[in-house]
Amino acid sequence: MASIDAQEGDIGAFVATDLKGAKAAAGESDKRWQAGAPLSLIDGMPLCIKDIMETASMPTEQGSDLFVGWRGNRDSAAVAALREAGAVIVAKAVTTEFAAQPARGTRNPWDLSRTPGGSSSGTVASIAAGMLPGGLGTQGLGSTIRPASFCGVFAFKPSFGGINRGGSFDTISQSSTSTFAATLEETWEIARAITARVGGDPGFMGVSGPLEAPEAEMPKRVALLMTEGWDRTVDDAKQALIDARRKLEVAGVEVVDKTNDDSAAALEKSLEGLLELSGGLNNWDFRWPMNTYAYDMDINKMSPEAQERLVAAEAMTHEDYQALVLKRKGLRSSYDALQNEFGVCVTLSAPGPAPEGLKWTGDAVYAVPSSVLGNPSYSLPVLEAEGMPLGLQVMGYADQDAKAFSAARAILGLYN
Amino acid sequence: MASIDAQEGDIGAFVATDLKGAKAAAGESDKRWQAGAPLSLIDGMPLCIKDIMETASMPTEQGSDLFVGWRGNRDSAAVAALREAGAVIVAKAVTTEFAAQPARGTRNPWDLSRTPGGSSSGTVASIAAGMLPGGLGTQGLGSTIRPASFCGVFAFKPSFGGINRGGSFDTISQSSTSTFAATLEETWEIARAITARVGGDPGFMGVSGPLEAPEAEMPKRVALLMTEGWDRTVDDAKQALIDARRKLEVAGVEVVDKTNDDSAAALEKSLEGLLELSGGLNNWDFRWPMNTYAYDMDINKMSPEAQERLVAAEAMTHEDYQALVLKRKGLRSSYDALQNEFGVCVTLSAPGPAPEGLKWTGDAVYAVPSSVLGNPSYSLPVLEAEGMPLGLQVMGYADQDAKAFSAARAILGLYN
Repeated sequence: MASIDAQEGDIGAFVATDLKGAKAAAGESDKRWQAGAPLSLIDGMPLCIKDIMETASMPTEQGSDLFVGWRGNRDSAAVAALREAGAVIVAKAVTTEFAAQPARGTRNPWDLSRTPGGSSSGTVASIAAGMLPGGLGTQGLGSTIRPASFCGVFAFKPSFGGINRGGSFDTISQSSTSTFAATLEETWEIARAITARVGGDPGFMGVSGPLEAPEAEMPKRVALLMTEGWDRTVDDAKQALIDARRKLEVAGVEVVDKTNDDSAAALEKSLEGLLELSGGLNNWDFRWPMNTYAYDMDINKMSPEAQERLVAAEAMTHEDYQALVLKRKGLRSSYDALQNEFGVCVTLSAPGPAPEGLKWTGDAVYAVPSSVLGNPSYSLPVLEAEGMPLGLQVMGYADQDAKAFSAARAILGLYN
Repeated sequence: MASIDAQEGDIGAFVATDLKGAKAAAGESDKRWQAGAPLSLIDGMPLCIKDIMETASMPTEQGSDLFVGWRGNRDSAAVAALREAGAVIVAKAVTTEFAAQPARGTRNPWDLSRTPGGSSSGTVASIAAGMLPGGLGTQGLGSTIRPASFCGVFAFKPSFGGINRGGSFDTISQSSTSTFAATLEETWEIARAITARVGGDPGFMGVSGPLEAPEAEMPKRVALLMTEGWDRTVDDAKQALIDARRKLEVAGVEVVDKTNDDSAAALEKSLEGLLELSGGLNNWDFRWPMNTYAYDMDINKMSPEAQERLVAAEAMTHEDYQALVLKRKGLRSSYDALQNEFGVCVTLSAPGPAPEGLKWTGDAVYAVPSSVLGNPSYSLPVLEAEGMPLGLQVMGYADQDAKAFSAARAILGLYN
């Protein structure tokens, strides 16, 4: 906790802390470990929670002036499960307003003049600063893979439906609750400690597999994706991906890309325009509750950005939305069909280092595919660009989170 | 509103009313109609809302002592859409605790000594009593089709995902928000007025089709389902279904059942054990938030029934749940494959009239198939048993709510 006192003033990672409650919970955990009876692998782990998830011990403000001090007096499903697993809930982590825009001032620990990325800003910054070893975020566009890249932290964006979102203010139809940690293994163990207790979203299989991080298993064949972000990717980052390819090849992995493989070329083509597709989907998915916030609560406490998204949503029709849903469904189905061709897809997590400034949370172009495809994605903080951290992204197939983890773990091994 | 004053004391349909707000909204609606510019087909329609859906103008108590006077200050998605459509939100309607058990005292207008059924008790009772022409409910087990049958009211239980559940305290993975009304046409028009504005659950297609009630279209071939409830069905109700079959046949419809059609026999067999299957699914789906209600709020304000369900949920594993989800998925897939064989399935809505007493909300055996299958279902109040109302149920195929409506409307025509 000393680290929090020393650094939080510079970083601004937290909306609220519960140091007293955390200390008590940590004491109980110590007793369980001493008695040889921990509740889970993560018993005693101090964590922070993105501030869109209800947490009984602290307010849930959603980065919104409308919800300052708001308390539901309950835990969201994931938080309730973490407590059952013995984890120590230390803080609510800053999110951009409604997990979208604008940012709320959190700074990147690697360079205080830069954004940590968003929307899971506080979670990732607190881990990068060494204040906490892990925490929860979400991703409906780029809110996990992007900040993990900018802050040099491990992240796991599960399959759609992978972690129960009950009690999270998250109505985005392609959003997943995600985990961040200082090690890859912990991203898995936090996620599984949750799903063993409350599963995935209602009706979904939820993240499955061993409670301990799955063993490394190198895929035989990998698709290297450049994505439509390549043209705006900085040279350092391009070179980092080229180097990653070489490492895979040296390890005996067959690496294909759009220049030498028709399936990879078709995949790249299918992944064009995803930021726009997601923008439409997310706007409609947020039409409610934005409408009731504006008309029943107080529109003046909503940012201009939020008000603009509501206007955009209200200009859409139900039929417009249905067309986007069908488009996404088709993309998922095409991607799933590649399972026998590529063990995983490998790409960057961002087109460069965290941008200067605290307003813009950065380009989500590399992060958006796993949001649209609903597939699991891991960001490994093994690259760098322009002296700042950069993530290498490993994407698997929906509801095969463990298999993708094994591949990510094997690829991580190439860097150790 | 005079009808509410006169009858509410006997019926106990409402948790809260907003007569002042309703009067003002009705006045605005009158002006729109006079100006020839109504907002929708249901502009001005007075409605009540099952008390698990957030409603900015009234508390949302979920039939629970934990939530007495609770206000979220926002509208749920469906309620926000209704207001946009000009509907008049008059009251919050009594639900059983957490839309499950126990009942909260609402009486059946046809016989005050009997249950109206649950869990959408207040909505259905208020319509049966003539206090309001329509309202919203939900069904995750039998909470729409069953009370509609017991109270002689029309009901529409949409396809799973059919109506946006944002802001409804409803975590059941097979639950749908549903509509009740004094006419079949209004059940459709209320539902479509909502989905035109906020769609279905995020990522789902939502109830689609014309804004006006679809035309009648008699199906050519119908499966008559007896279900595993037949052995506990009262003689009057059995005879009512036999008579319904005769009416269909006289109208030229080919009616098959398990005695003369292999597909119908296989379907009947596949639909055995659904109350138990749903019990397991619903318990796990409600593990959260029951756990946080018990451990973070006040377990003593939860009924013994709710506490028992939490115990049952905590005895389940994630793997148990996954097995139930896969079982349900298989049933849905088998049922969907029957589309070219049966235009719709027809059965009873309940095995008899509303039971005596106010504690037990009745047998859900006929209502549960559409919950598990996620298909649209309509209850037509055209039968009777032992001098009380009884529903005839018409079930279609998922995401084809309009087609099923057309069949239901044609079948209703046989009774006029």
